[in-house]
Amino acid sequence: MKNITITAYDWVPDFAQGHVRDLRVRWALREAGLPYDVTLIEQGRQTEPGHLARQPFAQVPTLDADEARLFESGAIVWRIAERSPTLMPEDAADRDSALSWCFSALNSVEPFVAQLTFLSIFAQDKEAAGRLVPQITALVERKLKRLSDALGDKDWLVADRFTAADVLMVTVLRDVPEVTLAAYPALRAYRDRGTARPAFAAALAEQMAPFAEHAPRYEKAS
Amino acid sequence: MKNITITAYDWVPDFAQGHVRDLRVRWALREAGLPYDVTLIEQGRQTEPGHLARQPFAQVPTLDADEARLFESGAIVWRIAERSPTLMPEDAADRDSALSWCFSALNSVEPFVAQLTFLSIFAQDKEAAGRLVPQITALVERKLKRLSDALGDKDWLVADRFTAADVLMVTVLRDVPEVTLAAYPALRAYRDRGTARPAFAAALAEQMAPFAEHAPRYEKAS
Ligand SMILES: N[C@@H](CCC(=O)N[C@@H](CS)C(=O)NCC(=O)O)C(=O)O
Ligand SMILES: N[C@@H](CCC(=O)N[C@@H](CS)C(=O)NCC(=O)O)C(=O)O
Repeated sequence: MKNITITAYDWVPDFAQGHVRDLRVRWALREAGLPYDVTLIEQGRQTEPGHLARQPFAQVPTLDADEARLFESGAIVWRIAERSPTLMPEDAADRDSALSWCFSALNSVEPFVAQLTFLSIFAQDKEAAGRLVPQITALVERKLKRLSDALGDKDWLVADRFTAADVLMVTVLRDVPEVTLAAYPALRAYRDRGTARPAFAAALAEQMAPFAEHAPRYEKAS
Repeated sequence: MKNITITAYDWVPDFAQGHVRDLRVRWALREAGLPYDVTLIEQGRQTEPGHLARQPFAQVPTLDADEARLFESGAIVWRIAERSPTLMPEDAADRDSALSWCFSALNSVEPFVAQLTFLSIFAQDKEAAGRLVPQITALVERKLKRLSDALGDKDWLVADRFTAADVLMVTVLRDVPEVTLAAYPALRAYRDRGTARPAFAAALAEQMAPFAEHAPRYEKAS
């Protein structure tokens, strides 16, 4: 991939800092050793036609390159992996497993974790939301139990090596409340193994950097 | 792909009949003209080691073939599409678009629709759930509005032709309450265009057939 540009926000509220989904893409690109530019989008401008043409749901991330144009963090990470031996196993069966785990991170685990985040942060009726938290937490725990069993004592999900599936699953696990994840020590160690990678740390620092710089403008506005 | 076997359930409760996710795989395989066998799993046996080795979250669908072994409906449909010109555009940019839309069906639209389903069907605290329905419905509507704008007056999401992305998005839209979808006539027509395809009708009939046959056993048990 040549001439890669991704999109990210110039600022987001505190609770989202370090959790915006361009993190996955930055991390994957750094693992793959692919250089990239970042277009920072100002809050409020993600719904302008130029960005909607790239991302129909007015969100980040997106990726544009000479020979690629994608939206959705899952799609972007998968395409990067297809071009990068650091993120994709060689063996065909392992590739199937990586693809399956990529979808399961985003379609079997993340939706339950996101539902918990919704109840804790976004729900307007806090009292009603609080009453649903135990049931959703139990659903998240059921997924974590299965995930922990599948990981066993392995370091990574697929073929005993780091892959694109770990980029996605580790970022999903970062959104699980610490008290919930703590009951699954193997998963907590797995998440920490992922976030200890230099490419992750660099990606995280890079996402955070513009927020401090642009905060004064947004704080003035609110 | 040769010697394909997928997994599905021999029976599910009424509300799930016609909506179990093996439907996506059956539909894709039929569009692709690939013959397949189905292993029906009895309720309660999805957590046995044999199935857990195939599907770590103890769910359906899975796909096994001579040269493929996958879980997650998204992963399976994408792999089928990679081997089938009926589901995958030729042009590289259109393939990127198809991949992006596959992930967006399952990671940007389905989680909100599923949250609504959870509140209506699975929530134990019905009163609290009912109080959250308006806010989640509004979130679903926001997604539907964007999706409708992106579809415009096109028949299908990508490259003016039916693709894997439509298999996933149409099955996601089938889970949106009719009264909610009705406000987006272009999306309702899009869903109906999808479900009018002979391959969809055959897949649906095939999923339903064993339920009637096995119902007496489960109804006796409950
Ligand atoms: N499924 C999408 C979700 C993207 C997403 O939720 N992006 C958030 C930031 S993490 C966003 O742009 N939110 C702003 C908005 O929805 O207006 C992906 O993985 O790319
Ligand atoms: N993300 C998975 C979800 C699979 C799923 O939810 N399967 C349901 C049927 S539609 C299931 O097996 N449920 C039984 C259970 O969770 O025990 C996929 O798309 O394959």
